[in-house]
Amino acid sequence: MQKGEADVLKVGVIGASGYTGEEIVKILAAHTGVKVTVLQAIVENEVPISKIFPHLEGKIDLVCKKPNLKKAGESADLFFLALPHTVSMSIAPGFLKEGKSVIDLSADYRLGVEEYEKWYGVKHKDTPNIKKAVYGLPELFRDKIKKAKLIANPGCYPTGAALAIIPLVKAGLADVNTIIVDAKSGATGAGRKAHISLSFSEVDENMKAYKIDEHQHKPEISMVIEKIAGKSPNVVFVPHLVPLNRGILSTVYMDLEKETNDVKINQIYKDFYKKEPFVRVMDEGGLPALRDVQYTNFCNIGTKVTGKKVIVVSCIDNLLKGAAGQAVQNMNIMCGFAEDEGL
Amino acid sequence: MQKGEADVLKVGVIGASGYTGEEIVKILAAHTGVKVTVLQAIVENEVPISKIFPHLEGKIDLVCKKPNLKKAGESADLFFLALPHTVSMSIAPGFLKEGKSVIDLSADYRLGVEEYEKWYGVKHKDTPNIKKAVYGLPELFRDKIKKAKLIANPGCYPTGAALAIIPLVKAGLADVNTIIVDAKSGATGAGRKAHISLSFSEVDENMKAYKIDEHQHKPEISMVIEKIAGKSPNVVFVPHLVPLNRGILSTVYMDLEKETNDVKINQIYKDFYKKEPFVRVMDEGGLPALRDVQYTNFCNIGTKVTGKKVIVVSCIDNLLKGAAGQAVQNMNIMCGFAEDEGL
Amino acid sequence: MQKGEADVLKVGVIGASGYTGEEIVKILAAHTGVKVTVLQAIVENEVPISKIFPHLEGKIDLVCKKPNLKKAGESADLFFLALPHTVSMSIAPGFLKEGKSVIDLSADYRLGVEEYEKWYGVKHKDTPNIKKAVYGLPELFRDKIKKAKLIANPGCYPTGAALAIIPLVKAGLADVNTIIVDAKSGATGAGRKAHISLSFSEVDENMKAYKIDEHQHKPEISMVIEKIAGKSPNVVFVPHLVPLNRGILSTVYMDLEKETNDVKINQIYKDFYKKEPFVRVMDEGGLPALRDVQYTNFCNIGTKVTGKKVIVVSCIDNLLKGAAGQAVQNMNIMCGFAEDEGL
Amino acid sequence: MQKGEADVLKVGVIGASGYTGEEIVKILAAHTGVKVTVLQAIVENEVPISKIFPHLEGKIDLVCKKPNLKKAGESADLFFLALPHTVSMSIAPGFLKEGKSVIDLSADYRLGVEEYEKWYGVKHKDTPNIKKAVYGLPELFRDKIKKAKLIANPGCYPTGAALAIIPLVKAGLADVNTIIVDAKSGATGAGRKAHISLSFSEVDENMKAYKIDEHQHKPEISMVIEKIAGKSPNVVFVPHLVPLNRGILSTVYMDLEKETNDVKINQIYKDFYKKEPFVRVMDEGGLPALRDVQYTNFCNIGTKVTGKKVIVVSCIDNLLKGAAGQAVQNMNIMCGFAEDEGL
Repeated sequence: MQKGEADVLKVGVIGASGYTGEEIVKILAAHTGVKVTVLQAIVENEVPISKIFPHLEGKIDLVCKKPNLKKAGESADLFFLALPHTVSMSIAPGFLKEGKSVIDLSADYRLGVEEYEKWYGVKHKDTPNIKKAVYGLPELFRDKIKKAKLIANPGCYPTGAALAIIPLVKAGLADVNTIIVDAKSGATGAGRKAHISLSFSEVDENMKAYKIDEHQHKPEISMVIEKIAGKSPNVVFVPHLVPLNRGILSTVYMDLEKETNDVKINQIYKDFYKKEPFVRVMDEGGLPALRDVQYTNFCNIGTKVTGKKVIVVSCIDNLLKGAAGQAVQNMNIMCGFAEDEGL
Repeated sequence: MQKGEADVLKVGVIGASGYTGEEIVKILAAHTGVKVTVLQAIVENEVPISKIFPHLEGKIDLVCKKPNLKKAGESADLFFLALPHTVSMSIAPGFLKEGKSVIDLSADYRLGVEEYEKWYGVKHKDTPNIKKAVYGLPELFRDKIKKAKLIANPGCYPTGAALAIIPLVKAGLADVNTIIVDAKSGATGAGRKAHISLSFSEVDENMKAYKIDEHQHKPEISMVIEKIAGKSPNVVFVPHLVPLNRGILSTVYMDLEKETNDVKINQIYKDFYKKEPFVRVMDEGGLPALRDVQYTNFCNIGTKVTGKKVIVVSCIDNLLKGAAGQAVQNMNIMCGFAEDEGL
Repeated sequence: MQKGEADVLKVGVIGASGYTGEEIVKILAAHTGVKVTVLQAIVENEVPISKIFPHLEGKIDLVCKKPNLKKAGESADLFFLALPHTVSMSIAPGFLKEGKSVIDLSADYRLGVEEYEKWYGVKHKDTPNIKKAVYGLPELFRDKIKKAKLIANPGCYPTGAALAIIPLVKAGLADVNTIIVDAKSGATGAGRKAHISLSFSEVDENMKAYKIDEHQHKPEISMVIEKIAGKSPNVVFVPHLVPLNRGILSTVYMDLEKETNDVKINQIYKDFYKKEPFVRVMDEGGLPALRDVQYTNFCNIGTKVTGKKVIVVSCIDNLLKGAAGQAVQNMNIMCGFAEDEGL
Repeated sequence: MQKGEADVLKVGVIGASGYTGEEIVKILAAHTGVKVTVLQAIVENEVPISKIFPHLEGKIDLVCKKPNLKKAGESADLFFLALPHTVSMSIAPGFLKEGKSVIDLSADYRLGVEEYEKWYGVKHKDTPNIKKAVYGLPELFRDKIKKAKLIANPGCYPTGAALAIIPLVKAGLADVNTIIVDAKSGATGAGRKAHISLSFSEVDENMKAYKIDEHQHKPEISMVIEKIAGKSPNVVFVPHLVPLNRGILSTVYMDLEKETNDVKINQIYKDFYKKEPFVRVMDEGGLPALRDVQYTNFCNIGTKVTGKKVIVVSCIDNLLKGAAGQAVQNMNIMCGFAEDEGL
C-alpha cells in the first residue's frame, strides 16, 4: 500500500484501551504521516482517549467509541487490532474484504491452522487469510511486509528470542535441536487485566518460572526458526515473570555446529544486523541491559561463546519492539514511510 | 479470659486466605501458648493452608475449610475474624453468645453506630455488641483489653496516626483542630483482591493520593483523638498509595498550643512510650525508616518541632502492627500471655 | 536571543554524564532547531556519549570530552550547565563574558547571596550575575525568560511545589503563613552517585522523611512565593524518599483566607493555567497520578477543599519538568522556538 | 563441638555491619542456645548494633566494636566471619589455633588452592586449613559438619544451584557435561556497598546478565558436582541481576542419561530431600515462587521433564539459606542444637 500524494493515511485502532493499544495511540499521535480517525474498545462510557490515559491529553482528543466495525471501516484505511487472541480472527476478514490493511497484534494469524488450534484451544474461524498473512518481523520478512495487506505482528517473547537466534541459524552454525530460551518478562507482558496473580502485592519482590514448555509462544518461536532452518527445531522455552513493568530479557543457549570464538560470532551478529534500524549488537564482550531499550523500539543483543555453546542475550521493550512499536514499524514499511518515523 | 492451667488455648481464624489471615496464621503457628484448630475461608477447594501459602509448609498443615460457624464454634475458644467490613457483624454475635472471645479485624465494631452507618453506607446489624467492644490499641486501652470478650482491632492507618498523635494530645500541647495526617501506604493495605488499579503494572513506579477526606479511616482517627482529648477534633487525612508491599509511613502535622522545643517534645514521646514493648521513639533529631519496622510489630516514631508546629513521623508494618500483629498482641493481653509472645 | 534565519543553534552540555545531562542530550538529539556541538563531563575516557548511555546510539554520536571551557566556548552559543551546586558559579561567568547564553541547572543563581550562602554553606563567587539571572519558571516569568542570558533553572521540589501554590496565592486566597509541602520523590532526584543510602537494597521497599525543614529547596520555595505574595511566607517543607525512579508528588496544604468551595478553587487553577502548554489541571474531584507525567514535561494538578483548608496535589517528572525538560522549555522560550519543541 | 551442660554457647560475629552480618545477629538474638558476646566490624564509631540496624533495638544491645581479634578470642567460643573474600583467611587461623570454631561465610575455604588462586586472583595465605575445612552444605555433608572446627559456608548461587542439581546426579541420571545454570539474583547478593551500578536508579526496573562464565561461583558449583559425580563436570553459569532485594531463582537445564518422565523425576527429588528440614520439593507439575522462601531458610524446588532434558527450578533467600541462615544451620549441627533452632 502506498499513501497518496499530499494525503495523510487515516488509521484506526480497535482495542485502544489496553497497554498495547495505549502505546499504539501514543506513537501514532506523534507520527507525521498518519491521522488517527478511529478508536474503539470495550469501554463503559465513550470518552476522549485522554480521559482513559491522561498523558495523552493535548496530544490526541479523539473519543474512544464502543466497537462498531461498520463505522470504523468507513473512517480509516488501515487498522491496528490490539485485541485478545481469538477475537481478531472475527474482525479482520471484514476489514480485509473492504480493501483495508490490517495489522493484527494478536496471535490469530501467526501460526498454521493446526498449530494454532492445538495451542490456543479453539477452532480457527478465518483459515483463508492465514495463508495471506505475513509474519511481521522486519529483520526477516521486510520484502513481504512491503506488499502485505494483513500483518501477523509477532509476539513479545518470539521477537526477543528470534532476533537472538536467527543470525546463528542463518550462518549454519546453530544445532537447532539444542535451543534453550530462558526468558524473563516484566508484568505488562500479561496485558491489562485484573487478576490476583498480577496484583502488585504478588508480583513485587517476587519471581517465578511459569508454563514451562506449555506457553503458546513456544510454537511461534519454533515456526520462525523452521522458516529459516528449513527443518523443525527442538526448542525449550522457559518464561519467567520478574518484578518490573516493561521489557523482556532473553538468555538463549545454543550448541555450535563447529568450533568458533567470541570475535567471529560477534561479527556474524554485527554483520547480520548492520543495516537494521532497530537492532544493536553490543561490541564483543558487552552485554545488554534492559534499561537501554525501555521506551524504545530497539532490540539490543550481546553474544558469548563458551566451549561448544553460544549464549546470546537480547533485550526488548515488550510493548514496543515486542508489540506496538513493531506494529508501527510494519505500518511504516507497508506504507512507504521512513521505517523509524514516530519511533 | 485466662487460659487454663496446663492448657493450650484453641484458636480459630475465619477468613484465613487473605493477607491478614495469612499473617495471623503464620504468627500463631509459632506461638507457644495456642493451638490453631480452625481455619475457614471462602475457598474453592478445602486444602491444607500450606497449599495456599507454601511458606507455611511444615509449620502448620491444618485444612482451610469453607465457612461453617457451627463447626468452628465447637472447636475453638477464641476467634480472629479477618473478614471484610460488614461481614464480621453477622458472625461475631454467634461466637459471643457461645461465650467465645472474638478479635475482629474489620471496622464493624470500631465506630459508634451513627458514624459507622454514615461512613460504611450500610445498616449495622449488631448494635448491642458495639458498646461492649474494646478498641484494641494496647498503648491506650490495655486495661480494658485485659477484660474484653470482643476486640475491635484498629485499622492500619488509624494505628500509625494515633500512635503519632496521642502523646502530644495527652500532654495538652496539641491544637486538635489543626491535625493533618499525610499517610503513605504500600499495596497490601488494600487487601488481596483482583483489581486493575492494584495490578503491578499500575502501582509499580507510580504514586497517588486518593479518597482525600473521604477515607473511612478518617472518622476512626478522629474517634481515638476524641477519646483522649474529650472533644471532637478536626482532622485532615490524605492517604497515598506508594509502590511497595508492606508498611505505612504517616507524616503528622499539628499546631502547638504553646511554644516548646525539639528536646522537650522528644522527651514527651519517649516518656509516654517508655514501657511499651512495641513502640520505639527515635532519639531527638532521628527519623524512622519503614525498613526498620517491616516484618515486625513495632511502631517507630520521630519528632520535629518547627516554629509553631510539630511534625511527627511514624512507621508501621500495616499487616502486623496495623492488623495481624496487633491482633495477636491483643490476644496475648486478653489471655495473660507475655505481650510479645509470637511477635 | 534569536536564532538566525536558516541557522541552527549550536548548543553545549557541560556535565553530560549525570541523569540530568543524559536527559538534556536525549531531548536535544531530537530537537529540530539545535545542533549539539559540545559535550563535556568528568569522565575517565573520552568516548562517544552513546557508549555511556547506550540508548543514545544512532541518535547522537558526539564524543563526551573532559572539561575544557575554552574549547567549549569556541563551539557553541548556548550552554546547559548540568553541574553540582557550587561548581556552576565558577563556570557561568566565563561563558557569559563571551556573550554566550547559559541555562544553569544548579542552585547557584536561584537565591539571593545571603540565602545562598546560608543554605549551601559556601561563599558565592559570582554575585554580580545573580541579579541578572532569571528564575526559569515559565508559568511565572515567561516574559523575563525571553530576554534572559542567564537562566537559573528551578529545582525539582520547588517546581512541583510552586506550580501547586502559585494560583491560590495570586488569587489572594492563601494564608502564606500556613503552607505545608509534603513532597515524595523518587531516587533519581538525588542524582547519579554511589552512596549506600541510595543503593537499591536500601531504597527498595523502603520509605523515609529526611532533612525536615533543613532541605536547601525550602528557601527556594519561599523565594518564589515571596515574589508573588510580596511578603515573606512561612513554609514547612518535608521531603520523603519513595522507592521509584522518576517523579515527585507534592501534597500541599494551605489555609484559605476566606471560605470557598471545590468548584471555585478548581476553576481558579484551570483559569490560571489555561494557556500553559505543560500544566494540566484535573477536573474537579480528580487527582493526578505520577504515571501520567512520567517521561513528559507536564505538571498535573488536582485540588480539594476541606473546611478552611485547600489541598493541592501536583505531579512532575523530576528529570524533565523538574530539570532537563524545563531547561529545554526555557531555551525554547529564549530562542524563539515553539515552546514544546523537542518535549 | 558440644556445648557444655547448663552452658549457653558464646558466639561472636566478625563483620557484623554488612547484610549477612545483620542477618546472623538477628537470628542469633532469638536463638535459645547461644549468647552473642562479640560484635566487630570496620565502623566509624563503636555504637550499639541497634543504632546501626534499628530493627534490632530491644533485641540485642551489644556494642559493635572495631576489629580486635585478641579481645574477640577471649570472649567467645565460636565465630562467624561475615567478611569479604581474601580477608577471612587472615583471621580464621588465629581463632582455630586457640581452639575456637569458625564458620566462614567468605569463599576463602571453599575451593582447592589452585582454583581459589585462579578465580580470586590472590595467593592463599592459609593453605593448611583449606583441607580441614568442611563445605557447609548440610544436605550433602551433614556428618562431616558435625565434627568440623572450620566450616566453609557455601556461596549463595552455589547453594541454589547445587540443591537443584545434586539429586539428579546422585541418581546417575544427569549428563554432567550439559549443565546450564541460569540464575536470577536480587541486589543484596552483591553485599552492602556504595557503587553506582548497585544504586536504586540503576537497578530498579532494569535487568541484565553479567560475568557470563566468569563468575567466581562457577568453580564452586563445579566443585560440588565433582564431589558427588566423581568426575569434572562442564557447567555453564549465567548470573542475572533482577530488581528485587532478596532471593535467587535458579533455572537449571540438564540432559538426561536415559529417558524418564515427570513423575519419576519428581519422586527422585522428593525422596532425596524427604528428611531435610529446609528443602521442600513441590508436587509434580508445581513450580516454586521466590516469595515462598523469602525471609526463611528454605529452598523450594520444582521439576519438569521435556524431551531429553530436565529443568529444575530452585528458590532460596540469598541472605538466609544462601548465607546467614545456612551458617546458623551449620552451627546448630556442629553444636548439637536442633537443626532448625532460631531459623
